[in-house]
Amino acid sequence: MSLLLDNQFKELPPDKSVDTKLFLETVSHIPAFFDCLGSSVFSVIKSDINGNITKIRGVYLKDPAKYVTLQDILVAEREAHAAEWPKVGATLALMWLKRGLRFIQILLQSLADGDRDENNPNLIQVNVTKAYQQALKKYHGWFVQRIFQVALHAAPYRSNFLKALSKGEEVKEEDCLANVRQFLVNYTATVDAIYEMYTNLNAELDYTV
Amino acid sequence: MSLLLDNQFKELPPDKSVDTKLFLETVSHIPAFFDCLGSSVFSVIKSDINGNITKIRGVYLKDPAKYVTLQDILVAEREAHAAEWPKVGATLALMWLKRGLRFIQILLQSLADGDRDENNPNLIQVNVTKAYQQALKKYHGWFVQRIFQVALHAAPYRSNFLKALSKGEEVKEEDCLANVRQFLVNYTATVDAIYEMYTNLNAELDYTV
Ligand SMILES: CCCCCCCCCCCCC/C=C/[C@@H](O)[C@H](CO[C@@H]1O[C@H](CO)[C@H](O)[C@H](OS(=O)(=O)O)[C@H]1O)NC(=O)CCCCCCCCCCC
Ligand SMILES: CCCCCCCCCCCCC/C=C/[C@@H](O)[C@H](CO[C@@H]1O[C@H](CO)[C@H](O)[C@H](OS(=O)(=O)O)[C@H]1O)NC(=O)CCCCCCCCCCC
Repeated sequence: MSLLLDNQFKELPPDKSVDTKLFLETVSHIPAFFDCLGSSVFSVIKSDINGNITKIRGVYLKDPAKYVTLQDILVAEREAHAAEWPKVGATLALMWLKRGLRFIQILLQSLADGDRDENNPNLIQVNVTKAYQQALKKYHGWFVQRIFQVALHAAPYRSNFLKALSKGEEVKEEDCLANVRQFLVNYTATVDAIYEMYTNLNAELDYTV
Repeated sequence: MSLLLDNQFKELPPDKSVDTKLFLETVSHIPAFFDCLGSSVFSVIKSDINGNITKIRGVYLKDPAKYVTLQDILVAEREAHAAEWPKVGATLALMWLKRGLRFIQILLQSLADGDRDENNPNLIQVNVTKAYQQALKKYHGWFVQRIFQVALHAAPYRSNFLKALSKGEEVKEEDCLANVRQFLVNYTATVDAIYEMYTNLNAELDYTV
């Protein structure tokens, strides 16, 4: 069951800084999203993302007063680990986490926009592929890209996916998509703000795994 | 670099009971084995196995005097969780861990036995496939089996694999294989003893993931 839509992200302040504590609280509900994909094998992705969150939380909890915003963490790590930064600590964890968050954002947006394969209207492969190409593909080498191709075959049906997003209740598709759109407002703004921060701080890397 | 061969398993006592503390100490060097497979993507398997070890250690540390042997743990869990057992706790973790250990055993044994594809003598796909078929395939659904097929293409060359097993030193192939054979003696006996215990306690399950 996904609690995704129940845990709305907060509206950003005008300076678009992301409050670390609020972010961690809300984002910790995201890994459950991967349960809606059906196969337990997606727990691999869930635990990668959980690992990112745990790492960021670990840094935050060392000094909550110092790390009020996500940017406070990146700036402090840049000073503390000049040689390795940004491939280090919570900066690296958030670099990858934001890509997983972007993947989810584009997937949900694509469903909300009604993108579909007219010949297979109950499949979400087009939406998943769009999200993958825009959010992750360039950071994956041939091996992980081929794993993705296989994983794509295990994507759930659209109807089951939307039902899972609605916690298994039989809600009308339009109602579910209205919830998705509502969810996406602050979520997208938060993910955009994190991407912008990586660009501004020159913290983005494009190595592949 | 693999520390595998440096961390020999101990000889079993005549009753073939496996000492929990010694087992955990030795087996904790196993996850590093997956680093010899080259691609960082195998860290997914490494963390699955690490998770198994962590779970068993967690139970052991709750009462080391009570859980002297692995069998002590299984028997105690059978009593404590009658309804779910054996799909629970350290019993489940060891059920899967032993399959990963068997996979490694068969792979190394097959290399030591000189099994090879005469047309591609520097590939280990035949050895990896043999290990997979005997140790894991029946517990994997179609999805994970296809992931395995893809992963197989990322297996390292035989020469690089043997070199990694020898901690990157240029040792003669025959010397490395002699070390492998030496390692396999107590290792195989330990893995066999764990399998026997699962059979005797009727603790084995054959559901697929
Ligand atoms: C039995 C045979 C088995 C054979 C072996 C099989 C191997 C299977 C491989 C599966 C790959 C799983 C995906 C995980 C990929 C991860 O490798 C990457 C990078 O992961 C990052 O790496 C960093 C170091 O470079 C740090 O360790 C980060 O950790 S740190 O916190 O320590 O800094 C970590 O997140 N994350 C990613 O690419 C993120 C993925 C996000 C979500 C993707 C959604 C896709 C959904 C698809 C739905 C159809
Ligand atoms: C970007 C797109 C990404 C798309 C998504 C990709 C998904 C990739 C999927 C990769 C599968 C990785 C292999 C892991 C499989 C695991 O699912 C299984 C069962 O794992 C067990 O499950 C139990 C519950 O049923 C408990 O949770 C156990 O945990 S518990 O401790 O909590 O009880 C846990 O170990 N372990 C296994 O099958 C064991 C595998 C052992 C080693 C195999 C060696 C193979 C080497 C091959 C070399 C060529």
